Amino acid sequence: MAEGAAASRLWLAGLCFFLQLLTIILFAAFVRYGPEDGPDLCSPQSNCSRRDPEPGSGYPRFRDAHLQALLGFGFLLAFLGRYGPGSVATSLLVVAFAVQWALLAQGLFYFSLKGKIYVGAQSMVSADFCTAAVLISSGAVLGRVNPIQMLLMTLLEVPLFACNEFILLSLLGISDSGGSLTIHTFGAYFGLMVSRALRQPRADEREEQQGAGRSPDVFAALGTLYLWIFWPSFASATTAREGAEPWAVLNVYFSLAASTLAAFVFSPILYEEGTLQAARIQDAALVGVAVMGMAGEMLLTPFGALMAGFLASHLSLLGSRFLSPILRSRLRIQDTCGVHNVHGLPGVLGTLVGTLLAGLATADAYGGRLERVFPLVAQGSRTASGQAWWQLCALPVTLILAALGGSLTGALLGIRVLRSDPKSPETESKVLREVPEDGLDPGASHEEHPCLTAPTPR
Amino acid sequence: MAEGAAASRLWLAGLCFFLQLLTIILFAAFVRYGPEDGPDLCSPQSNCSRRDPEPGSGYPRFRDAHLQALLGFGFLLAFLGRYGPGSVATSLLVVAFAVQWALLAQGLFYFSLKGKIYVGAQSMVSADFCTAAVLISSGAVLGRVNPIQMLLMTLLEVPLFACNEFILLSLLGISDSGGSLTIHTFGAYFGLMVSRALRQPRADEREEQQGAGRSPDVFAALGTLYLWIFWPSFASATTAREGAEPWAVLNVYFSLAASTLAAFVFSPILYEEGTLQAARIQDAALVGVAVMGMAGEMLLTPFGALMAGFLASHLSLLGSRFLSPILRSRLRIQDTCGVHNVHGLPGVLGTLVGTLLAGLATADAYGGRLERVFPLVAQGSRTASGQAWWQLCALPVTLILAALGGSLTGALLGIRVLRSDPKSPETESKVLREVPEDGLDPGASHEEHPCLTAPTPR
Amino acid sequence: MAEGAAASRLWLAGLCFFLQLLTIILFAAFVRYGPEDGPDLCSPQSNCSRRDPEPGSGYPRFRDAHLQALLGFGFLLAFLGRYGPGSVATSLLVVAFAVQWALLAQGLFYFSLKGKIYVGAQSMVSADFCTAAVLISSGAVLGRVNPIQMLLMTLLEVPLFACNEFILLSLLGISDSGGSLTIHTFGAYFGLMVSRALRQPRADEREEQQGAGRSPDVFAALGTLYLWIFWPSFASATTAREGAEPWAVLNVYFSLAASTLAAFVFSPILYEEGTLQAARIQDAALVGVAVMGMAGEMLLTPFGALMAGFLASHLSLLGSRFLSPILRSRLRIQDTCGVHNVHGLPGVLGTLVGTLLAGLATADAYGGRLERVFPLVAQGSRTASGQAWWQLCALPVTLILAALGGSLTGALLGIRVLRSDPKSPETESKVLREVPEDGLDPGASHEEHPCLTAPTPR
Repeated sequence: MAEGAAASRLWLAGLCFFLQLLTIILFAAFVRYGPEDGPDLCSPQSNCSRRDPEPGSGYPRFRDAHLQALLGFGFLLAFLGRYGPGSVATSLLVVAFAVQWALLAQGLFYFSLKGKIYVGAQSMVSADFCTAAVLISSGAVLGRVNPIQMLLMTLLEVPLFACNEFILLSLLGISDSGGSLTIHTFGAYFGLMVSRALRQPRADEREEQQGAGRSPDVFAALGTLYLWIFWPSFASATTAREGAEPWAVLNVYFSLAASTLAAFVFSPILYEEGTLQAARIQDAALVGVAVMGMAGEMLLTPFGALMAGFLASHLSLLGSRFLSPILRSRLRIQDTCGVHNVHGLPGVLGTLVGTLLAGLATADAYGGRLERVFPLVAQGSRTASGQAWWQLCALPVTLILAALGGSLTGALLGIRVLRSDPKSPETESKVLREVPEDGLDPGASHEEHPCLTAPTPR
Repeated sequence: MAEGAAASRLWLAGLCFFLQLLTIILFAAFVRYGPEDGPDLCSPQSNCSRRDPEPGSGYPRFRDAHLQALLGFGFLLAFLGRYGPGSVATSLLVVAFAVQWALLAQGLFYFSLKGKIYVGAQSMVSADFCTAAVLISSGAVLGRVNPIQMLLMTLLEVPLFACNEFILLSLLGISDSGGSLTIHTFGAYFGLMVSRALRQPRADEREEQQGAGRSPDVFAALGTLYLWIFWPSFASATTAREGAEPWAVLNVYFSLAASTLAAFVFSPILYEEGTLQAARIQDAALVGVAVMGMAGEMLLTPFGALMAGFLASHLSLLGSRFLSPILRSRLRIQDTCGVHNVHGLPGVLGTLVGTLLAGLATADAYGGRLERVFPLVAQGSRTASGQAWWQLCALPVTLILAALGGSLTGALLGIRVLRSDPKSPETESKVLREVPEDGLDPGASHEEHPCLTAPTPR
Repeated sequence: MAEGAAASRLWLAGLCFFLQLLTIILFAAFVRYGPEDGPDLCSPQSNCSRRDPEPGSGYPRFRDAHLQALLGFGFLLAFLGRYGPGSVATSLLVVAFAVQWALLAQGLFYFSLKGKIYVGAQSMVSADFCTAAVLISSGAVLGRVNPIQMLLMTLLEVPLFACNEFILLSLLGISDSGGSLTIHTFGAYFGLMVSRALRQPRADEREEQQGAGRSPDVFAALGTLYLWIFWPSFASATTAREGAEPWAVLNVYFSLAASTLAAFVFSPILYEEGTLQAARIQDAALVGVAVMGMAGEMLLTPFGALMAGFLASHLSLLGSRFLSPILRSRLRIQDTCGVHNVHGLPGVLGTLVGTLLAGLATADAYGGRLERVFPLVAQGSRTASGQAWWQLCALPVTLILAALGGSLTGALLGIRVLRSDPKSPETESKVLREVPEDGLDPGASHEEHPCLTAPTPR
């Protein structure tokens, strides 16, 4: 064990201890059980109104939302399929801290009243969504940052996420229940900008070798299954309005089916590998979900959902074939896990689809549902085309915030003290990595894989 | 990369594209959001009445049913344990297409009104059930068909499944909520007949080597757990009637426990392998579920459920020991994953148990539940013994439809153009299989396994 | 195959057959569908009142509780991460029998009326909880007992568990919804005592080698995810009272987050391994849950939950570093999977936290919730400090019952006939273990691991 690594371990332990202590103190000072749980009641004129559940619906709503909230970790499982189990420890570290931090950061914007933050089902759903965005960002930089840098990135990204979400949902009145913009687009471009600031010239060629297919089949298969099983519910977790949900569930389901099937159309043409890797199918499933984030609860029609999933899957494949090399060579952005193609592009496409649908919304077609999906239109304070205009405006707002925030964060993480010793990048990143005592040399990964691909029936 | 394989990849891509395009067009023309979701309302006198949920129950019922619907993919996870992750890509391809196709095919029979098909929670549950049957069928032929043949099989099986289901449930008035007949029996015998038509003489001895135990422990363990955790709910997903469900859940649970324990009784006697493989335990769990498909919601009593699970597990084990070799040598039916023992036999046994219970049903014992389980008996248009008679008649109907349909499909899939080049069956089936670039020779599977069985504590 | 192993296989088969037959006969004689399912109704004055759900809540409550009940098997998945897939068969055998046996044993205490046991959602939840305790106990002895001994241990532990649970919950009026005492503490100390009676002197050094990190990453990662996703619900499964649940869910969630983060603080300091193993993170998550068993539904405040999780995680790590060697050398207790640190210590700590909170409970702070959490205090038959006193008394009661029962069981299992042949402990335990035909020598485990740790992005 090198001297530097030992010191780095102590630094990490100290940072974790400090952050946990900080959260405990802030929780003690500010966080209380939410109005639905405790004797306190959130008054109607307070700023906790936006996501406030209907009074009287208390208990069943809570359970419902909670189950979905935790299912949000499906992101994590999906990511394991992409990154391999070696990233488990780092991912769990990020999750454990991001959840607590997001409860505080988002609580300030949404759930606070008289200086106290009230936590409940809705705040946990929001915190999980924020954690998802952080995990997406981490996908862009994975393998080039050490755990300390990852924690600091979380520390900075969470408040910025909460700020962007507050601007979009509360100030601009955007409808984005599944987070095409707030989660997928923000997370992807924030991570890409951090990655740009932290680029390592020598890592380029290694990148090439580690394609999507290098992650083991077991995780990719489980991740895909998980997406198919649980995500339609996840996508509609924040909808939180009776009647509007079924559309979201059906739309996501159709989009998933179409985008999965689409992976079998273009992959064999674009990639001459002769085999379709399970990881690529999982990516397609993720794309099908990301594109439905905003448009899911709108009147997309089953046909439209199939089309959107089909197109998004193709766009993502084309992006990973032709756009990623340009990003890498021209813009010097390294994207470890292809988050630009899997989250960034579909998020932007989903926003455009959502904008189109918002412009076409009429009271006749939506019925009582209009008030739930576009409350401002239903109240008459906005026209449908006005809503569409604001939905479109939210895209550059998110992109600018993500790009600026990501660049600043990346610059901060890049300072000498935090940076891994350039001579031994492996040593540092090994701090949290699972390595057997008998030593596993980096080149061994080529021999590992055959062990994980089980024998297929012939 | 051989020339043939490249051409085959393009064929597959083209077929996927064509099928997705077809579905999109059909969806655009016919599919609309269901009555519970949109402003349209399914009129009471329409033919969408059978599975129609009670009005007013809308939202919570939807969520409930939907979660269960998607859990139906547990089939897939269970199958992974049996077939190994190498079949992931093919299975997902089948699922992605079968779901869309089943929505259309079943929609024609059940959910259509004035030329439009209305999709909602119930139609998604039905589509998932149909997909499960297709996956069962694919288990019989896996390893001997290429993805193109698999897609065509799906294309043909789905409408036939919908037709058989319509005859049984709507015309004959059969009670088969968990699909002992419609899913397990139909799927198994359809697949076996296709397999018979596509038999490859040389594959016989290879078959023998690939026993149940060759699939890795990890998947088998996860699959078994999944069955235990989620299947009791799955089995009662289409019951969709208050009060009748608890019996189904309890019965499936007891049957699962007994059939799992039974695997430890006969396995060590029948097989002199000295070790009990996780895959065999998973098979027993599957058997315990399949046998409860029809009888689950009837008055089986906890004791009866234990007995049924115990007997079915033994029957399945005896079948795999003594019947499978006969099927293979005399009837020339190759059964890659033993679907005859795991789905076929238990399905038939479950039908017989269900028939017996239907004959014994009395209004006193069932109470208000009678109307839900046997509506025709409760209305007085049938006696209990009449209902039993019809339940029994449904068995040959299903068998004949499955056998005829399977033989025809198999004959069609066997034509020269579709068939893999007899000289290189591996090349073709590799199109979708995950193979590392450095090449994994077929014989390597023997060395792979030790890597997947983790060290056991001693 | 040695002669002894063949005989042992037949013994096991015979024992399974006998036990299953016994259960079937007892079920036939005593078990009926519960009151919520059948026409029978549990009269209010009967002893099935304690866990009786509110009338009229029937159907949705059932589904809710049932889903959670089955999720209890998360224990099993969590254990797989710890023990490796090699223990799958034994674990499933234990589960399949324990569930049936627990339904009978607990039914006698709780759900019986006029000589019949009525099974329903609540009895299944209870049976799953009991199974969880048996699995915890098996963790202490795993690898040193053969399946026959495991079955006999289950046979004896289940009634004792039901007895202890009845004393605590019904006679002493303890509030312990998540089972800090009844499940975690009882299961851990029962298993440790059995382990002490069955100690094998030669096994000591082997023990040392098989640290936490030897279980493969895949399972540990899945187990941790499972805990995060489903356990907050599991912990509140028996709460079964409206309004009290949300606190339990939030508390468990905060405790999980803090204990997971805490694993990153002390692990790198206590263990100089340089790498943080996924199994250790999973242990921390388990600890965070175990400590919330009793205090979860009390007024812990979010801050208190963070603190409790943080402290419990540290306590567990310190225990595994300094206490386990003492247990092993001085008290000659071998603890295969560290259940003392992961379940025993946190269970005791959780009891102390629960006692403290019970003493601080006031009607003002709890509101209408008081009646649900501390019914005896709300009725005025006990003061808060009296309740705290009884909560504390339950700890030695549980410890004494577990220690006595475990010692007796261990002594019984240690008799010559049952014991494995001391010359070939491996042969016996192989009866149920998955071993490939080409033979896997014990030393191969060192080479296996690199195959399961997937390549990490660099």
